[in-house]
Amino acid sequence: MPYPRLQFALVTLAAAAAALCMAAASHAQAPQLPPPDATYPATLQLMQGFPPPPDKVVRLANILKYPNVRWAAHHLRELGPTAAVWRGAGAPSALLAAARALDDALPVPDGKGGTTTLADWQKATYTDGLLVLHRGRVVYERHQIGMQPHQPHVLWSMSKSLTGLLATELIQEGVIDPKALIPRYLPELATSAWADATVQQTLDMTTGVQYAENFADPASGVFQYLAAAGLQPAPPGSNAAKSMAEFLPTLKKEGEHGTAFAYKSVDTEVLGWLLQRVTGKSYATLLSERIWSRLGAQEDAYVFADANGGQSTSVGVNATLRDLGRFGEMLRANGSFNGQQIISAATIAELRKGADPTKFSKAPGTAMRAGYSYHNQWWVPHDEDGTYEAKGLMGQHIHINPVAELVVVKLSTHPVPNTAFTHALDRQAFAALAAAVRAR
Amino acid sequence: MPYPRLQFALVTLAAAAAALCMAAASHAQAPQLPPPDATYPATLQLMQGFPPPPDKVVRLANILKYPNVRWAAHHLRELGPTAAVWRGAGAPSALLAAARALDDALPVPDGKGGTTTLADWQKATYTDGLLVLHRGRVVYERHQIGMQPHQPHVLWSMSKSLTGLLATELIQEGVIDPKALIPRYLPELATSAWADATVQQTLDMTTGVQYAENFADPASGVFQYLAAAGLQPAPPGSNAAKSMAEFLPTLKKEGEHGTAFAYKSVDTEVLGWLLQRVTGKSYATLLSERIWSRLGAQEDAYVFADANGGQSTSVGVNATLRDLGRFGEMLRANGSFNGQQIISAATIAELRKGADPTKFSKAPGTAMRAGYSYHNQWWVPHDEDGTYEAKGLMGQHIHINPVAELVVVKLSTHPVPNTAFTHALDRQAFAALAAAVRAR
Repeated sequence: MPYPRLQFALVTLAAAAAALCMAAASHAQAPQLPPPDATYPATLQLMQGFPPPPDKVVRLANILKYPNVRWAAHHLRELGPTAAVWRGAGAPSALLAAARALDDALPVPDGKGGTTTLADWQKATYTDGLLVLHRGRVVYERHQIGMQPHQPHVLWSMSKSLTGLLATELIQEGVIDPKALIPRYLPELATSAWADATVQQTLDMTTGVQYAENFADPASGVFQYLAAAGLQPAPPGSNAAKSMAEFLPTLKKEGEHGTAFAYKSVDTEVLGWLLQRVTGKSYATLLSERIWSRLGAQEDAYVFADANGGQSTSVGVNATLRDLGRFGEMLRANGSFNGQQIISAATIAELRKGADPTKFSKAPGTAMRAGYSYHNQWWVPHDEDGTYEAKGLMGQHIHINPVAELVVVKLSTHPVPNTAFTHALDRQAFAALAAAVRAR
Repeated sequence: MPYPRLQFALVTLAAAAAALCMAAASHAQAPQLPPPDATYPATLQLMQGFPPPPDKVVRLANILKYPNVRWAAHHLRELGPTAAVWRGAGAPSALLAAARALDDALPVPDGKGGTTTLADWQKATYTDGLLVLHRGRVVYERHQIGMQPHQPHVLWSMSKSLTGLLATELIQEGVIDPKALIPRYLPELATSAWADATVQQTLDMTTGVQYAENFADPASGVFQYLAAAGLQPAPPGSNAAKSMAEFLPTLKKEGEHGTAFAYKSVDTEVLGWLLQRVTGKSYATLLSERIWSRLGAQEDAYVFADANGGQSTSVGVNATLRDLGRFGEMLRANGSFNGQQIISAATIAELRKGADPTKFSKAPGTAMRAGYSYHNQWWVPHDEDGTYEAKGLMGQHIHINPVAELVVVKLSTHPVPNTAFTHALDRQAFAALAAAVRAR
């Protein structure tokens, strides 16, 4: 091994803390990263052989021990229960190549004032797959580290943006009232943190909940959250909740609702629960009926399930790179794709509006994303091109640039979970891609 | 509830004992069965609601408590880890309707000297799906109890026939020597029951292994087997193996190899392990590359995985009714389907040959299937029409009648796991279907 295993396991945990509580990652604090080549599943022989050697077995219990997640991120269903998001019975929609593609050698800023290439930026950011669409045509597509095009990749917190999209659409349809208090739909939360929180506050993550997503603290709520979601074993000796429906009602209020942004997965789980309650349909069914089957997805997606059959609407969705490209292109085209209006243009407009950046900037660690807001589970930079983004742990991105008619989907398994760690670098690359497609 | 829950839970366990050790089920011993209508998942509200009420939650730990399996059999991936059997990137193959279909009212013998209908036979045998093909055209298709056509259904022991088919094909290709002793391929089994067993004896289940599939005895090997496969929790306080690769080497020889048939899932797990070892590919990959993708399956199939990532090649495959119809039709057409030779005609001929019925009849409980043999993991009745069959717990059937050019796929969740319990009734129904398609 060219780098010490333990060190990076610790780095991963520490960085994960930074990730979810949005702590700023300064250049001075940058950990020494393993050479990307040394983290490929095939190089490391992860899960190779029948059976794999004990030290090469990847399980949920060790996916946070880097680089196991490089295998796990495109094999998550092999580690636990999942519900299928059916692609439907129709033929896949066309996803055609553009006449002129972008090149691996495309110059991209290296984040230090110099220049790297499109290929090297991907490698340096531990990319598993990159898809770039211009005006709906594929201008660049790469699957890396052995991930096959038909294999779904975990979205982590990009799942939140799917949930926010569905919630926004149901608000547009009048099924959900954004001003209503959460217990109107979920009486189980009447004595919880969400007792007097509105749907909109929950959508914008401005609720005040006594809960921290701090991986560095074993007593942090995040480990109880992950255990309830079935994504991590319960902490030893704990009486952690065994399902999300059991966990969420135990959380108490802290501070005021509506005053400041505070990033937390549990807000989204409340929304996902609410969606299922008001529609009477599972989240996987909603995703299939309203989005996946209508996109003409090539492959089924899936959602991780908890010990109670509950589906993780905050971090549990898995889908292929190309199907995420179809999804992103549908958004760019104001909800229209595959010959039909899939999501209303009003919903897309609502997502793009963003929220109040002054509330956003009150959260610790948001300096890297100065000027952003978080609205209906989407990241909105409020920039000239009107870009908006879904983001997930370890470098998941759907970046939509309406002015440049550009969609970028980037799936990664970066050793530093906090996507803010590579934020400046990635934004510069997205801008370079926008410039490149404009110049074509 | 129209029938006592506990009683049927016990009936299920007792009957399961009969099932797997092949004990004869006489009419006198017939348990009182629940009315089929009373076992529908929607009627019982199994897994309905967000979350479902605690007494409606189906988990692996309670799938043997009838009628939970009526929901679980077409939702198994929601209960544990699974590996996808990819359908491939191509369009699904055509599965066209015949000009004239069979009718629900088709008379079928009722097993007591009288007559019932095709519809009532299905209901009485707790059918989840029935597909009948004549000359490759669909003459009858029904999905029952809420199962959707795109939902894979568990095959249980019909998985064995897929494994046997792949093994036979690799024998035909010269990759596996049927006369070789198992440890030639799997040194891990050099001190186990299979130390001096040949591949062929393992294929025909004439090995002598100190192991009983007896559900009535909590100390029976079957509970250790199911725990190792990840399909049931380990028995409380046991030090059961955590994976199949850990479990199989612990089994010891009992009696002689090659003298008598003895039905046991562990033989197939040895074969499945061997297939993966010699090809270097996972079972799910083999099924996808060699069968599912070439059939033009409509949906991905999947295989249940153990705590080590091992795939259950004996009971763990799940597939849709229609894709199993494509598979059965490929066999009927001597390996040719979807415009290509998928499996060699020599392999199909080998499966159909059967084995020695005198060895078969030495096993307890085989009187119901007098004249049958079991060869390369297929059931061969040695009848006039040259029929051959895959069979699985609770009423899974792929019945192929080459003379009548008939394929029947029947998926069920019968309260009596032993498929021999309805054997006479089912055989009469299959014969009635053969007569009906001949008369069309």
